[in-house]
Amino acid sequence: MNTPSLVLVTAPALGSGDRPGFVQAEPTTAHIVVAELGLSRGDGFFETIGVSQGRPLSLEPHLRRFAHSAQLLDIVAPDLDVWRAAALAAIEAHEPAAELSAKLVMTRGVAGSEKPTGWVLVERAPDFTAARTAGVSVVTLDRGVRHDAAQSAPWLLLGAKTLSYATNMAALREAGRRGADDVIFLSSDGYVLEGPTSSVILRHGDTVSTPATEFGILAGTTQARAFDFFAARDIRTEYALLEAEKLRTADAAWLVSSVRQAAPVHTIDGRELSIDAELTRALNAGLLTADD
Amino acid sequence: MNTPSLVLVTAPALGSGDRPGFVQAEPTTAHIVVAELGLSRGDGFFETIGVSQGRPLSLEPHLRRFAHSAQLLDIVAPDLDVWRAAALAAIEAHEPAAELSAKLVMTRGVAGSEKPTGWVLVERAPDFTAARTAGVSVVTLDRGVRHDAAQSAPWLLLGAKTLSYATNMAALREAGRRGADDVIFLSSDGYVLEGPTSSVILRHGDTVSTPATEFGILAGTTQARAFDFFAARDIRTEYALLEAEKLRTADAAWLVSSVRQAAPVHTIDGRELSIDAELTRALNAGLLTADD
Repeated sequence: MNTPSLVLVTAPALGSGDRPGFVQAEPTTAHIVVAELGLSRGDGFFETIGVSQGRPLSLEPHLRRFAHSAQLLDIVAPDLDVWRAAALAAIEAHEPAAELSAKLVMTRGVAGSEKPTGWVLVERAPDFTAARTAGVSVVTLDRGVRHDAAQSAPWLLLGAKTLSYATNMAALREAGRRGADDVIFLSSDGYVLEGPTSSVILRHGDTVSTPATEFGILAGTTQARAFDFFAARDIRTEYALLEAEKLRTADAAWLVSSVRQAAPVHTIDGRELSIDAELTRALNAGLLTADD
Repeated sequence: MNTPSLVLVTAPALGSGDRPGFVQAEPTTAHIVVAELGLSRGDGFFETIGVSQGRPLSLEPHLRRFAHSAQLLDIVAPDLDVWRAAALAAIEAHEPAAELSAKLVMTRGVAGSEKPTGWVLVERAPDFTAARTAGVSVVTLDRGVRHDAAQSAPWLLLGAKTLSYATNMAALREAGRRGADDVIFLSSDGYVLEGPTSSVILRHGDTVSTPATEFGILAGTTQARAFDFFAARDIRTEYALLEAEKLRTADAAWLVSSVRQAAPVHTIDGRELSIDAELTRALNAGLLTADD
């Protein structure tokens, strides 16, 4: 038995006051109508939260980013108290497992209804042992936009975690066609951005760096936890504007994300990188320890 | 009574052979599970077809573009015979009205199922009389990508009509904030592209032009019909690379789309354009006449 657990959030928006504001539901039953704007327009946002030994990782940062996406999309603010309780209830309702993922989704709702739709789906996490130890190969792909487009063109919704994810999925398929496991997006003017579903961390000597979030990329919750880990080991951490050249000079690199955690990169565009197995093992152990 | 009609396409993909391959369903009933990739990833494609006096407009070009989107998204090819019959059945099932819209949607399906999901939703069209006669005001917005990104970065899915439409909707909201009705997207290097839900046609003297489709824009089915109309009136038509400057020198402009048809543009970025009321009336009458 490995059934996902589903909680429908009946009071997703701030201000309704309904409590508890969510209800457990059958995940294999249809709950969504075709006029749902999350479906017909990709018009909604989400967070995927890692769950280790039954405890959600970085729950509060994820909830804050969830609310930030709502703002960027001009969707009514989520009631984070309801969402927090709904997420915990959905995790509680799932058969215990070492690692789960909890996906929170909120949309603009059914066309014409003016009422958002929301749910939390909790599933068993895939086994990411190979990616966390042997690592992944990546190719760089142009994301088509300049590194500063988030400021000049906010309607591009860079930095919002929207349901409009088709290009991220297409980029991962392109990586597969090129024989690689994953992607690092570059801006059209040649700066490192992020992966389709991950943040990029590079190590040069005793400094680790990641692209600054003002450059139209998602503020990584797992990247923030990883920086805490590195800082505690006296490794310097920095947010920076990183030229693509920095990928070619990196001593090590990781793609970090909420469920896979830290995947060391063993190859970038055909160039091999060494993997610090001990540091990566400690990093993943740290990331999987809930402390917030 | 103004209830949409819904047909679920049970055999959306080429090769299943099931006939008829669709079934009528209740539009207000939930038919979609939350694990649907069209919903969680915007991973699907659609066409919206205008229906005039019960007859779908440009049905075959829409079906061809539907299949082209599948290809760009690496989704299994739609069985166009099933989709054509499903669309006609959904139109037939709707209470007669002068104008309807028929939306065909096909997605990658439920995660893990390897089986696409599909449906056709037919609704009464909004009353677009004002937009077709008094016209619309537009602002230009940067789409962030270069005009040649479709060739260099196919994973951006430019030219596919995907469900990942959140940025198009955000651009329309930005237009509203600026007091305008609609948007013309420009490439980051300054060329005219398209509207979020329409094609752009400009008139300079006795020539009408539209951006060529190799520039990462959707091949407009209504734009093609409009060009037939103009050609029949001995107005020269051309597909071209149009610098943004062409918007400032245009004698007239229209946004054309499948349900609203031709909306004359009365203002671009604050500059007023004259509307040729007679030509526009004839154009809309022509567009609303099914001839294919």
